[in-house]
Amino acid sequence: MDLIIKNGTIISPTETYQADIAVKDGVIVAIGKDFTEEGATVIEASGKLVLPGAIDVHTHLAMPFGGTVSADGYLSGTRAAACGGVTTVFDYPVQRKGKTILGLIDEKKAICEQEACVDYAFHCCITDLNDGEILEEMEKAVAEGITSFKCFMVYKKEGMMVDDGTFSKLLMRAKEIGAMINVHAENPDLIDLNIAKFKEEGKLSPWYHYMSRPEFVEAEADKRAIHWAKNLEASLYIVHMADKEGLEAAIEAKKDGHDIYVETCPQYLEFTNEVYKREDGRNFVCSPPMKGKESQDALWKALRTGGIDTVATDHCPFQSYEKDWGKEDFTKIPNGCAGVENLYPYILAAANSGKISFNKAVELCASNPAKIFGCSQKGSITVGKDADLVIYDKDKDFTVSVNTMHSDYDHTIWEGKEFHGYPVMTFSRGQLVFEEGEFVGKPGWGKFVKRASKK
Amino acid sequence: MDLIIKNGTIISPTETYQADIAVKDGVIVAIGKDFTEEGATVIEASGKLVLPGAIDVHTHLAMPFGGTVSADGYLSGTRAAACGGVTTVFDYPVQRKGKTILGLIDEKKAICEQEACVDYAFHCCITDLNDGEILEEMEKAVAEGITSFKCFMVYKKEGMMVDDGTFSKLLMRAKEIGAMINVHAENPDLIDLNIAKFKEEGKLSPWYHYMSRPEFVEAEADKRAIHWAKNLEASLYIVHMADKEGLEAAIEAKKDGHDIYVETCPQYLEFTNEVYKREDGRNFVCSPPMKGKESQDALWKALRTGGIDTVATDHCPFQSYEKDWGKEDFTKIPNGCAGVENLYPYILAAANSGKISFNKAVELCASNPAKIFGCSQKGSITVGKDADLVIYDKDKDFTVSVNTMHSDYDHTIWEGKEFHGYPVMTFSRGQLVFEEGEFVGKPGWGKFVKRASKK
Amino acid sequence: MDLIIKNGTIISPTETYQADIAVKDGVIVAIGKDFTEEGATVIEASGKLVLPGAIDVHTHLAMPFGGTVSADGYLSGTRAAACGGVTTVFDYPVQRKGKTILGLIDEKKAICEQEACVDYAFHCCITDLNDGEILEEMEKAVAEGITSFKCFMVYKKEGMMVDDGTFSKLLMRAKEIGAMINVHAENPDLIDLNIAKFKEEGKLSPWYHYMSRPEFVEAEADKRAIHWAKNLEASLYIVHMADKEGLEAAIEAKKDGHDIYVETCPQYLEFTNEVYKREDGRNFVCSPPMKGKESQDALWKALRTGGIDTVATDHCPFQSYEKDWGKEDFTKIPNGCAGVENLYPYILAAANSGKISFNKAVELCASNPAKIFGCSQKGSITVGKDADLVIYDKDKDFTVSVNTMHSDYDHTIWEGKEFHGYPVMTFSRGQLVFEEGEFVGKPGWGKFVKRASKK
Amino acid sequence: MDLIIKNGTIISPTETYQADIAVKDGVIVAIGKDFTEEGATVIEASGKLVLPGAIDVHTHLAMPFGGTVSADGYLSGTRAAACGGVTTVFDYPVQRKGKTILGLIDEKKAICEQEACVDYAFHCCITDLNDGEILEEMEKAVAEGITSFKCFMVYKKEGMMVDDGTFSKLLMRAKEIGAMINVHAENPDLIDLNIAKFKEEGKLSPWYHYMSRPEFVEAEADKRAIHWAKNLEASLYIVHMADKEGLEAAIEAKKDGHDIYVETCPQYLEFTNEVYKREDGRNFVCSPPMKGKESQDALWKALRTGGIDTVATDHCPFQSYEKDWGKEDFTKIPNGCAGVENLYPYILAAANSGKISFNKAVELCASNPAKIFGCSQKGSITVGKDADLVIYDKDKDFTVSVNTMHSDYDHTIWEGKEFHGYPVMTFSRGQLVFEEGEFVGKPGWGKFVKRASKK
Repeated sequence: MDLIIKNGTIISPTETYQADIAVKDGVIVAIGKDFTEEGATVIEASGKLVLPGAIDVHTHLAMPFGGTVSADGYLSGTRAAACGGVTTVFDYPVQRKGKTILGLIDEKKAICEQEACVDYAFHCCITDLNDGEILEEMEKAVAEGITSFKCFMVYKKEGMMVDDGTFSKLLMRAKEIGAMINVHAENPDLIDLNIAKFKEEGKLSPWYHYMSRPEFVEAEADKRAIHWAKNLEASLYIVHMADKEGLEAAIEAKKDGHDIYVETCPQYLEFTNEVYKREDGRNFVCSPPMKGKESQDALWKALRTGGIDTVATDHCPFQSYEKDWGKEDFTKIPNGCAGVENLYPYILAAANSGKISFNKAVELCASNPAKIFGCSQKGSITVGKDADLVIYDKDKDFTVSVNTMHSDYDHTIWEGKEFHGYPVMTFSRGQLVFEEGEFVGKPGWGKFVKRASKK
Repeated sequence: MDLIIKNGTIISPTETYQADIAVKDGVIVAIGKDFTEEGATVIEASGKLVLPGAIDVHTHLAMPFGGTVSADGYLSGTRAAACGGVTTVFDYPVQRKGKTILGLIDEKKAICEQEACVDYAFHCCITDLNDGEILEEMEKAVAEGITSFKCFMVYKKEGMMVDDGTFSKLLMRAKEIGAMINVHAENPDLIDLNIAKFKEEGKLSPWYHYMSRPEFVEAEADKRAIHWAKNLEASLYIVHMADKEGLEAAIEAKKDGHDIYVETCPQYLEFTNEVYKREDGRNFVCSPPMKGKESQDALWKALRTGGIDTVATDHCPFQSYEKDWGKEDFTKIPNGCAGVENLYPYILAAANSGKISFNKAVELCASNPAKIFGCSQKGSITVGKDADLVIYDKDKDFTVSVNTMHSDYDHTIWEGKEFHGYPVMTFSRGQLVFEEGEFVGKPGWGKFVKRASKK
Repeated sequence: MDLIIKNGTIISPTETYQADIAVKDGVIVAIGKDFTEEGATVIEASGKLVLPGAIDVHTHLAMPFGGTVSADGYLSGTRAAACGGVTTVFDYPVQRKGKTILGLIDEKKAICEQEACVDYAFHCCITDLNDGEILEEMEKAVAEGITSFKCFMVYKKEGMMVDDGTFSKLLMRAKEIGAMINVHAENPDLIDLNIAKFKEEGKLSPWYHYMSRPEFVEAEADKRAIHWAKNLEASLYIVHMADKEGLEAAIEAKKDGHDIYVETCPQYLEFTNEVYKREDGRNFVCSPPMKGKESQDALWKALRTGGIDTVATDHCPFQSYEKDWGKEDFTKIPNGCAGVENLYPYILAAANSGKISFNKAVELCASNPAKIFGCSQKGSITVGKDADLVIYDKDKDFTVSVNTMHSDYDHTIWEGKEFHGYPVMTFSRGQLVFEEGEFVGKPGWGKFVKRASKK
Repeated sequence: MDLIIKNGTIISPTETYQADIAVKDGVIVAIGKDFTEEGATVIEASGKLVLPGAIDVHTHLAMPFGGTVSADGYLSGTRAAACGGVTTVFDYPVQRKGKTILGLIDEKKAICEQEACVDYAFHCCITDLNDGEILEEMEKAVAEGITSFKCFMVYKKEGMMVDDGTFSKLLMRAKEIGAMINVHAENPDLIDLNIAKFKEEGKLSPWYHYMSRPEFVEAEADKRAIHWAKNLEASLYIVHMADKEGLEAAIEAKKDGHDIYVETCPQYLEFTNEVYKREDGRNFVCSPPMKGKESQDALWKALRTGGIDTVATDHCPFQSYEKDWGKEDFTKIPNGCAGVENLYPYILAAANSGKISFNKAVELCASNPAKIFGCSQKGSITVGKDADLVIYDKDKDFTVSVNTMHSDYDHTIWEGKEFHGYPVMTFSRGQLVFEEGEFVGKPGWGKFVKRASKK
C-alpha cells in the first residue's frame, strides 16, 4: 500500500462508518480495521469525514461566450476544483456550426493533457446536425468515451438553439447508442419578446434579466423537453433546473418510470431573484436566472426527497470589467458565475447543519453523477475504485473570498459566504492535490475519463 | 306577431318546458301559453323539440388549401348549414403573408352578401404581424365586430405557423382589446420529422397521416398554448381538440380559473384512428387526425362534465378526385372533411339516445358558442333574441348520404350514418329556410353578425 | 293574468334580458314584451333585476340540539326566508334513534301547514337503520316526495353518527330508489381526541372550537365520503363544505364524471377562523367551523369555476344566553348561526360587486338547488313554473342588524354587514310576501313541495 | 480473521464490485483484495454474488389467529428464514386486550432464546391503550430496543381494530419517543357489509374473500392512514401494500417530504386475484387479498422507481386441514400464507431476470429494512457490521416444493415456482447456517436485535 487513511468516518450514499482505507497505485485496495504497512504514507483522519471526491458535471472552461471567454481556463478551473474537493470536472465543448465534433474534442484533450489538475471528461454540445453527419459522429464519440451530449432549447438568435425536431433526433439517436442528452431548457421566443419589450421601455437593470426569463419561461421548456423524452422513451438529463413547475414535471415523469434526471446548482439553492435588485446584481447574471422563494423551497425539498439527482455548478465566471459592460444594459452582461470550488463545501455545509444528510450530499455530488454519466471508476469509496478522496473537517470554519479561492476570476458571487465545515485534503487517484487551503497538485496530472455507454 | 310556434318542447341549456313562441320582425317577442293572433303563421310543434339554431364556429368555405380550394363555397356551405339546423356559420379568412386583414374581411363580406343563406361571422387567421401593423389593425377589426382571431402553431413549412413569441403577442393584444384567440395546436417539427422518416421508409398510406401526428404531438402544442395563456392571463380558445392529454391540461387550467375554452368536432367523437386503415382512409384525412379510443372516451366524458365548451365542425370538404391525389402518398391528400350539415343532427342524436342531455346539446352547439364569441342576439330561445330556431323530431329516422346532403362535395365521411331523430324545420330570423329535407331559403338572406368584444 | 311584472331585467343561469312576466294562479304564464291586461296587478320593475326566488336547501328550524332548541321555528324561520328572497326552505327532521321516519315527517308537515310563510321541503336525517326497516321506509318517503336523506359522519358520542357500513348502505339504497344522500363530513374521533386534549390543557376559548376541527379533520371525512360514493357509483351531496382539500377532492371526482354535489354557506365565504379570536367568538361557533384564508379563497374560486353547486345557509341560530353557556368552555356553546335571511342578499351583493355574475348567483341559489333536489316547479323564471320571484334593486344600500331582520333570534353574526343592492319584493307563487323591508305574507301560506326522484 | 469470503461480487444498494470479505468474531473487519490468513475458513465465491442477509420485517410466528395458531413457530420459522437467506426476522406479538406489552415481549424473548436459528426483533401490536397506560409503556419498550409498534385499522369485530383517535394517539406518541408505527390498512365496515351481503346471497367461495375486500376497501384505509400521518407530521410504515390507489397516495406523500414508508410482499407481486378462482383458492386466502393486474403492475413500477421501500412476507402459514375449514365458506379460512423462505429467492430471481437490479433487491430486502427499523448492525456489507451474508449462485435452478422448504407447514402457495438463481450459503454473524439446500445452523443461535430509536 502506498497510502493509508486511518480512522476516518467514511460516507457512502447509504452508510456512515469508521474504517481505514488503503490505496495502492491510485486505487482503493482495502477498507477495514487496523491497517498498517511500512513505507505507506499514513493520514490520521480520526474525527474527520472521508468522502469520495466530487464530480462537477457542469463547467464551462475557457468558453467563448457573450463576446468574450469565460475567466477560468482548464488549468485554473481544475486547480480550483481540486481545492474545493472536486476530483473530476466535465467540460462542455461547443460544436461550431457546421463543423464536426470529434476534432473539437481532440483539441480540448490536447489542452487538458497539459493543464488539467484533476481528471476531466467532456459532454459535447451539438448545435447543428450537418444533415445527419453528426448523428453518425456521435457513435464514434461514444466509442471514445464521450457518452453524453448537450443541446440548447434557447439561444435562438445566437444560433445555438436546436428546434424540437433536432432535439427529438438527438434523443432518439442517443437511445440507439447508449448515450445521454443534456438539455438547457428555456424558451427563446418569450425571452426575446420580453427583452425587446423591456428595451423599448428602457428597463435595463439586472432585475430585467430575471424578468425576461421568469419561472414560466423556463418551466415551459422543461415540460416540453420532458414531454419529448417521455414519448420517445429516451433518457434525458436536465441541467441547472431552477424553477418549481419544471421540477415537478420532472418528478412526475420519474415517478412514472421515465429515465429523466435533474441537476440543480448551488446558486439556485442559495440565492433568489432578490439578488438582481442589489447594486452588484449584474455579477449574479446567469441563465437561467435565480428564481423566487417558492422555486428555491421546491428545490430544497426535492434534494431531500430524491426529485433532484445531482448538484453541479455551471461554473462560467467572467471578470468584473466584463460584467461591467452591462452596467447600463442587462443584455450586455456576459452570463455566468463562478462555482466549481464552492460546490462541495456548500453542499457539505448544508449536511453539516442538518438540512440534508452527508450520505445524500455524497449521492448528489459524487455517486449519482458517476452513475448517470458512466464514470465507473469514480464516485464512491469502494474497493477497486480510484482513490479520489476528500477529508472533511466538520469543525473547520471558512469564509469564501476571492483571495482564498484558486481560480483566475477577480470576484465571486460567493464572497463572504461562511461555511461551518470545510475540506482539508483532496486526493486525486491517491495523490494529495489540496491541503489546508493550498493547492499542492500539478497541471497535467489530470487524466481523461473514458466513460461507459448505457449499452 | 308574424309567426307562432305552438306547443313545442323548448330546450334551453338549463330548462325543458312546453310553451308557445311568438316571433315578430325576426325576433322572439314572447314565450307563453295559448298564443293566438290573426294573420300570423302558426306552426304546430306539439311533440317536437324547439331548439335554438346551432352556431358552427369553425368552417372553412372556399378556402385555398393543399393546392386546391375547399369544395364548399359560401353559398353551398351556408345552404348545407341551414339544412343541418345551423343558423350562423363562422368562417376563417386567412391573412395573406405580409398583407392586411381588414381588406380581406371586406372581400369576404362582399361575397357573403350575395351568397350566404344563413347568418355569418368571421374569425381572422393571422400568419404575420407585419412588424406590429397587424396588432394595430386588430383593434379596428374588433370595432367592426370581428372580435376573434386565429393562429396556427403548426404549418411551419407552409408559412402559416406563428412562433411562441408571435403567439404570445397575439394573446396579450387580444387581452387588451377584448378579443379571443383561437389556436390550432399541433407541433410542426415533430410532424415534419415523422413525415421525413416515413417517406424514407416508404410508409405512405393514410395510416401514416395519423402516425405522423399522433396524440403526443397534438398534446405538446395544447399544453404549450395553455401554458402561455395561463401565464399571460389571457383568454384562449383551442379549436378541434382531439387528444386526451391536451384536453386534461385544458380542464386543469379551467379548474384553476383560467379563461380557456375547448372545442371538439363530431369526427373525433364518432371515429377513431382505425378509419385510416380503411380502403377509403384518405377521405378521413384531416388535421389533427382522429386519435385512439382512449382520447375518444376522454372527449365524451368531457362533453358531459363541462370540460368541452363547444362542438363545431372544421368543415372543409374536398372532392374525391382531390383526395385521390394522395392515394399513393398521404402527404398529397388535401386535409379536411365535410361536417356543417351533420353537426346538430349528430349531437342531438347523441342526446336522443341518452349519451348527453338535450340541454347540454344546446349549450355545446348554440349558447356557449354565442357567449364565447359575443353573438349577443344568438344562441338561445329568449325574448328579444333572433328567431333562429330548429324544430326537431325525436322520432324521425334519417340516413346520411351525399345525395341527401345540400353541399357541393361529392362524398362524405358521414355516408351511411343513421340518426334517430332529425331536424324538420330551420328558421333563420323567423324565416323558414329548411323544411322536411329541402332547402327553402335563398342566397343573400344571411347577414353579417357584428359581435361584441369582451370589454 | 293576475300579475304583470313589467320591464325588469330577468336573470336566468345563462341569460340576462329585459321582458315582462305574466302570472296567473301563481304560475308564470308568459314572458314577453309589452304585456297589458285589465285587472292585473302591474309591478313596474324597470331598472330592477327580476330573479327566481332562492331555495335554501339547508335550514334547521325548531331543531333540538346542544341541550336546547334552535331559535327560529317554522314560522319565524320562513318569515325571515321570505324577507331575504328565499321562497322555498328545506328543513332537516332528525330521526329519533330506533324510531321511524314517516311519522316524523307527518308531524313536521302538520306544523308547517299552520306556520310556514313560504314553501317547504324536507330532507330526513337518518341515524339508525333499525335493522334495515328504515331502508324500506325510505322508498315510501320518496313516494311522498321526500327524495333526499341526510347522514352524519360526525357526532359519534351524540349518537347521530353513521359508520362507513351504514353510510354505504344508505348510498346504495338511495341509488336504487332515485334518492340523494346529504352528508355532514367531519371526523368524530379526531374531534373528540382534540377536545379531550384541549380540556386537559385548559384551552377552552372559542378558538379551540376551530382547533379541534381544523381543515384536515373535515377534509378526511370529505375524502372518505367521496371515496365511497365514487366506488359505489352513488350520488352524493356534501353539505357546508368549508375546506380546500375536501373541495378539491370533490372537484376531481366531478371531473371524472361522478355524481357529486357540493354546497357551501355564506359564513364560510365571508368569515375565516379569525372570528374565533374575537370577544364574541362564541357567537360564530358552528360546525364545521370557519377555516383559514386558503380554504376561503378556494371556495370563492370554486364558486366561479363550477366546483361548488349550491350555496345554502345551515341556518340554526341560538339566543345569546344560550351561546353564553360556553363563555368559559367552547364545548358548551350550542353550534349554529343565523343565515336564511342573509343568503340571497349576500350572494347577490357579490354579483353586484363583480365577484361572480348574477347568472351564477341564480344558478347557485335557485336553479341548481331545484335541479339537484327535484323541485320541478321551482328554481327559474320559466313559463309554467311557480311565480317565486324576487325584485332586486342594485342601488339600494342595506345594513344588516338584528332589528331589521325578521327572525326570532336576538343577535346575528351578520350584524353590521353592508350590502350594496338588496331585494325589494318577494313573491311566493305570485303572492307578495315581502315588500320594502316588511313581511307582508301570512303564516300557513307556504305549501309542501313534493319532489321528484331521480328515477 | 475467522472467515474469508474470496472473490465474490459484492452487492450494495449502490455498488457492484469484486472483493474479498474478512470476518472476525461475527463482524466484517475488512473488504479488499487478495486477503489471506492462516487458520481462517476460506470460502471461494468467485462467480457468485455476495449479498447482505435479508431482513424479513413481517412474520407471524406461532400466532394465534382464525381459531388456531400459525403453523410455523419460532424454531421452524427462523430455520426456514436461514434457508431462504433471511438473517433477521421481525415477529409481531399481539397485545392481549387490556394487558401490558412488556411482559408479552419478555415471554417471546424467552422462547426465542431457545428456538431462534437467526437473529430476531419484535414490533409490538397494540390493540388497546388501557386508558393511556400503554402510551407510557411504549417508551420503556423503546428503551429496550423495541422501537416499532403496529396497529390494525381492520378487524373491528375481532376486537383488534384501533379507531382513528387511538391511531392518531399512537402516531403522536411514536413521534415523541422516536418510534415507528406500522399499520394494516383495510376498512372493516365495508368488509363486514360485503361479507354479510355475500353470506345472504350464498356467495361463499374464496373469490368472495377478494370481493369483500377489493382494491377500494384497502385504498380507503391507506389514504386515511396517510392523511393522519401527514397532518400529524408523524412517521408511518404501511405493511403489505397491495393496491394501486393507496400506493399512489403514499408516493405522493413521500414526494411531499412526508416520512411514509411502504412495504409490499412477494405474493402481491407474483399473484393476482385470479388465484381465488382456482380449485385450491382457499390456500391463497390472506388479508389483504391479492388484487387485480392493474395494482400488480403499479407495485412493480413502484419497486423500480422508489415508491416501495421494502419487501417482506407477512409469513403466516396454516395447515391444509385448517385451510379446509373454509371449503364451503370463505369466512372460515384462516388468513395467511407461507413466505419467509421464498422472499429473497423471489426478489433476487427478479433481479437475475432483469426486472430490477441486484442493488435494488438488496436495498428492498436488507438495507432499507435495517434503516427504517433501526438495525444499525445489519443490512449491508460494510466494515463493522454483522457478517450476515448470503452467497448467491445466479446459475442455480431451483423449484419450490413443500418438501424442499424448511418450515413446518404442509403446503405452500409457492409450490412449483421455478427460480433461476438461488442462495447457496447463508452466514449468520459469520456462522454458516445454510448450505446447498440444507439447514446447518442450530436453534438458540439467534440473538435479539436491540434496535435504535429515531431520536
